[in-house]
Amino acid sequence: MKRLDTTQPDFKAEFAGLLADRDSDTARVDGPVTEILAAVRARGDDALCEFTNRFDRANVTPATLRITAAEVEAACAQVPARLLESLEVAATRIESFHKAQMPSDMRYVDDAGVTLGMRWTALDSVGLYVPGGKAAYPSSVLMNAIPAHVAGVGRIAMCVPTPDGALNPLVLAAARRAGVTEIYRVGGAQAVGAMAYGTATIAPVDRVVGPGNAYVAEAKRQVFGTVGIDSIAGPSEVVVIADGNNDPRAIALDLLAQAEHDPMAQSILITPDAGMAAKVEQAVATELETLPRAEIARTSWDAHGAIITVRDLNEAADLVNTIAPEHLELMIDDPAPVFDRVRHAGAIFVGRHCPEAIGDYVGGPNHVLPTSRTARFSSGLSVFDFIKRTTFIEAQPESLRRIGPAAVSLAQAEGLDAHALSVSVRLADLDRRA
Amino acid sequence: MKRLDTTQPDFKAEFAGLLADRDSDTARVDGPVTEILAAVRARGDDALCEFTNRFDRANVTPATLRITAAEVEAACAQVPARLLESLEVAATRIESFHKAQMPSDMRYVDDAGVTLGMRWTALDSVGLYVPGGKAAYPSSVLMNAIPAHVAGVGRIAMCVPTPDGALNPLVLAAARRAGVTEIYRVGGAQAVGAMAYGTATIAPVDRVVGPGNAYVAEAKRQVFGTVGIDSIAGPSEVVVIADGNNDPRAIALDLLAQAEHDPMAQSILITPDAGMAAKVEQAVATELETLPRAEIARTSWDAHGAIITVRDLNEAADLVNTIAPEHLELMIDDPAPVFDRVRHAGAIFVGRHCPEAIGDYVGGPNHVLPTSRTARFSSGLSVFDFIKRTTFIEAQPESLRRIGPAAVSLAQAEGLDAHALSVSVRLADLDRRA
Repeated sequence: MKRLDTTQPDFKAEFAGLLADRDSDTARVDGPVTEILAAVRARGDDALCEFTNRFDRANVTPATLRITAAEVEAACAQVPARLLESLEVAATRIESFHKAQMPSDMRYVDDAGVTLGMRWTALDSVGLYVPGGKAAYPSSVLMNAIPAHVAGVGRIAMCVPTPDGALNPLVLAAARRAGVTEIYRVGGAQAVGAMAYGTATIAPVDRVVGPGNAYVAEAKRQVFGTVGIDSIAGPSEVVVIADGNNDPRAIALDLLAQAEHDPMAQSILITPDAGMAAKVEQAVATELETLPRAEIARTSWDAHGAIITVRDLNEAADLVNTIAPEHLELMIDDPAPVFDRVRHAGAIFVGRHCPEAIGDYVGGPNHVLPTSRTARFSSGLSVFDFIKRTTFIEAQPESLRRIGPAAVSLAQAEGLDAHALSVSVRLADLDRRA
Repeated sequence: MKRLDTTQPDFKAEFAGLLADRDSDTARVDGPVTEILAAVRARGDDALCEFTNRFDRANVTPATLRITAAEVEAACAQVPARLLESLEVAATRIESFHKAQMPSDMRYVDDAGVTLGMRWTALDSVGLYVPGGKAAYPSSVLMNAIPAHVAGVGRIAMCVPTPDGALNPLVLAAARRAGVTEIYRVGGAQAVGAMAYGTATIAPVDRVVGPGNAYVAEAKRQVFGTVGIDSIAGPSEVVVIADGNNDPRAIALDLLAQAEHDPMAQSILITPDAGMAAKVEQAVATELETLPRAEIARTSWDAHGAIITVRDLNEAADLVNTIAPEHLELMIDDPAPVFDRVRHAGAIFVGRHCPEAIGDYVGGPNHVLPTSRTARFSSGLSVFDFIKRTTFIEAQPESLRRIGPAAVSLAQAEGLDAHALSVSVRLADLDRRA
């Protein structure tokens, strides 16, 4: 863990180092991924099964790639009723927020008499990647599938690796709650390839979404263009802005809740209160003594964690805008001024009663959020990932007369004579009829 | 040019061939682009100038990379007043449409007492790529820069290659009108690399947008993640749905207006009227005799053009949904039913008085649109490319009590104990105070 202080002369260099410290750790996997994708594209199910059997120590054939409805039911029957109720609370709230997020079509007639507008339509099909193994999160299934359903996507295919044959009952229960019925036991770059290019068993989709490891991220990058993708997810991050009026244990747990995700996760506390900084640091050490995932959390906290003391909360907000964190908590008396000053963050958790974990499960907004400073230019998953716009223009004779000549003149200047003629023959025709 | 007929038994195979015929033509340029990007990243301005001097037969140094305000003014002075007026018509209309497109923030309190919402903020900086050489289009400058300005982007950097030193006065006039003052005489993958990674002369941007050749497209693909990008643009396409009541020459010119862009462009006429099909085919041949860009247009039309005769307009709309064309013209008596049935198209031009060229210049909606069937999952350039969402949640004690326990339960089920504890310590604290 690094201790930084904005009043110190070396702060700028230290802060730049903090922002860069996870960049160099990214594994280079583009070569292997290119090979996997090419194999899946060329040999379809055969390659898909080979990779799955090798990487997940499985024994699948094209006939058993799909997880059956009976398997889903059997798995769901293992989930305790109380947990299904919690899943229902989460699903209902996620559904409600994403419904509120749906945009409206636009249509208007402007002062030249031209009808203009844009119309939103859903994608026909979407592929959801759900990580397996240590990161098999049922909540991610809800967060990916529900916005697609709310958007009106007709077909949702889901791929989840089942290493050593292990099905995660709660993952399947989440898929069932979200209405996903087409589920395949495949993961990694091979799953992304199957969804993008299609195989005999898995029909291609129009867009692949969902978080994954370095291979999944690289595969998404490589299939981009053939299909759409969402943002490429990196390790999780949180910035907590805390004043002196906090329970240090609560703040420490917020930092550790990111750190326990991944050794590469990053948790940063920013505080104007040096006493709080010290207390939180001590509380982190105390919690690490008993936390079940202490090994992961300690690795993350030691390597990437930071406590930054600042002069005031404005300075804190300015640092946040440089970090552009995935998650931002405002654990302060008066969050509004900081909230207004922050421009770049994936999601903001406002006030002491809203730890980030609320947003991971039951808040309503999506927990798939831009990482690695990409909140500077991108947004979390939403209904916007599952719809697209068609713009339209309708001109009547009079409006064509008003705006057409400028188009002719510009087309001629660009040396595009067919463009110019396509307008001018219509203008000439209108003149003849007038 | 291919003639297809939906009533013929080989239609399905012919149509699939038509959709695939441009796929295999894409040049493989990923290797050279990787090298160019690595060089620009490692050696900055030196590499940028070397590539520019080699590819554009120029003689630039870091000191002369930027096009000066005096050069811009001198160039603009060469543009005829009538052309500047046409540019103004276009710019005003583009501005007006994109202002109408700006979404609103959202904030509400739900029935659990949780405040939820999302806020849109502009990107800090954007890089605009403007093609040079044969595709140096002033209209593209307006279409890229104006939405960024409307969105509120603080810094807009523009890169335009000037092969053999040739500045395009109307391109610079368009930049001036759109308020772009930071312009560099560089192009290709090296320009994309400079904007993404930054050099001593060109500060890095948050997102790179704008159409370009295969090198530019591949470079955008490779820098994705470091910066945001817009859709990767392929060669232009149009589908014209025409009934029997058209001037065949007007329809022919609409087809040729796409074909004259690029030998790889694709123009498709779909009509239920075999007589109109024949007349348009003849009119295309006639226009090609005199069209200045006939060589390009003929290559495109011969290799990729098609006339498809259909049973009725519903069938036409269904074909459009498979093609997902960049541009769709509805040159029919009653466009509404077809308009409603089409789900996948970048932009629709409704009615006989609105040829696609109107949308290229003065319609208002953006002319940077998804190509190569990507309208299935993506949209044209818009203000949405220059803003991003931050979601937020604010919970009060009572609402934390209502939704917190479900979060604790799900976090425990996912084995994320710090997540669970971060909520449960706050719930326990509320209980103590109660």
